[in-house]
Amino acid sequence: MVLGLVVGTVVSTRKEQELTSLKFLLVKPCDVSGQPTSAQPVVAVDAVGAGVGEVVMYASGSSARQTVVTKDRPVDATIMAIVDAVEQDGQLRYQK
Amino acid sequence: MVLGLVVGTVVSTRKEQELTSLKFLLVKPCDVSGQPTSAQPVVAVDAVGAGVGEVVMYASGSSARQTVVTKDRPVDATIMAIVDAVEQDGQLRYQK
Amino acid sequence: MVLGLVVGTVVSTRKEQELTSLKFLLVKPCDVSGQPTSAQPVVAVDAVGAGVGEVVMYASGSSARQTVVTKDRPVDATIMAIVDAVEQDGQLRYQK
Amino acid sequence: MVLGLVVGTVVSTRKEQELTSLKFLLVKPCDVSGQPTSAQPVVAVDAVGAGVGEVVMYASGSSARQTVVTKDRPVDATIMAIVDAVEQDGQLRYQK
Amino acid sequence: MVLGLVVGTVVSTRKEQELTSLKFLLVKPCDVSGQPTSAQPVVAVDAVGAGVGEVVMYASGSSARQTVVTKDRPVDATIMAIVDAVEQDGQLRYQK
Repeated sequence: MVLGLVVGTVVSTRKEQELTSLKFLLVKPCDVSGQPTSAQPVVAVDAVGAGVGEVVMYASGSSARQTVVTKDRPVDATIMAIVDAVEQDGQLRYQK
Repeated sequence: MVLGLVVGTVVSTRKEQELTSLKFLLVKPCDVSGQPTSAQPVVAVDAVGAGVGEVVMYASGSSARQTVVTKDRPVDATIMAIVDAVEQDGQLRYQK
Repeated sequence: MVLGLVVGTVVSTRKEQELTSLKFLLVKPCDVSGQPTSAQPVVAVDAVGAGVGEVVMYASGSSARQTVVTKDRPVDATIMAIVDAVEQDGQLRYQK
Repeated sequence: MVLGLVVGTVVSTRKEQELTSLKFLLVKPCDVSGQPTSAQPVVAVDAVGAGVGEVVMYASGSSARQTVVTKDRPVDATIMAIVDAVEQDGQLRYQK
Repeated sequence: MVLGLVVGTVVSTRKEQELTSLKFLLVKPCDVSGQPTSAQPVVAVDAVGAGVGEVVMYASGSSARQTVVTKDRPVDATIMAIVDAVEQDGQLRYQK
């Protein structure tokens, strides 16, 4: 998984039927302190009730389909956890 | 998934038989306002009736095969949704 | 899938037994007009009778195993189609 | 797999239920001598009892789910081994 | 698959039990003439008896598990073939 900052939402009415009722969040990869990097954002499905401004962990690829809400759905990025704290080199770098 | 702008089409008559009748669209990864980035385009299969000029979401890898039209086919990129709106940092960045 | 230009061949006699009888082609990712980019080439298995000098589409990852010739084989890149034409922004960018 | 240096931990209380009881470590990709590169860290699940400061090998994608602790869980990066030694070009580059 | 040069070995005694008895080789991605690129090396499992100094092809992702020695094991990179020759643009670029 990688760390990401939820920065927005994506709305779509015309979509593959298996995507119905999923929530799409715009997530920017971020560093250990929660600062977004220059990488382009991904559109991830929310499996944990995350919201804009929260630092999360998301999984990519087939692993993104191993949750109750994304099982067998055409999803390749899913938010798996809301991050409480990140510690690096013995220092607290991020705390919710 | 990532955001992309449909910029063209790819035609092939000689192809793997499992690709027959699929529509191949040329998609450039784009930013939250729909502007294409400098990344090379991908060739994605259309699962939602997308057209040139539309901002879409596409999935990559095995997730690209989890739709009715791409099931068990040798496809690694599929357009899953046509984007209506993208909101980032509380601002509407793209609207169809 | 991505567009690629077939630029050569790779020969191997000592290989995993499941690769026996497959044809390995050297493919450089290319732009919409068929010009190779600076990216390193990949070694793709040929599923459609492609030859050196042709612009093709190839799939990566598990999708590369969804063809008759690559089924259940340890292959992660397969040429799926020979490209006839690429149209971008209303202009014909490549024609065979 | 790639080599990585365990540099920290990530804590999350609100997460997908299938992630319960897993340990999340912050891992920076590193070179053959154990020096972290400039690449962003990943969050990997620990399958071998690794700790901060250790050089490890981790697997990504669906392969990350092929262990006893990660089976069928939504995990896309797993630490598979603690590295004892790396030898390159006939020289010992890293030793635990 | 991509071309790589075997440059070393990685030793680990504490590892996931499914990795027992596998041989881990350090592989640097290389160009068509066998010269390593600046990309970081990967740790690949050997399925064909490759040795240091040989140019090989390796597969990544789930395809890396489609061999007799790596079946259902947590492996995401496997050496599939030892390269005898690479021909590009009508010229022999590498010969063992």
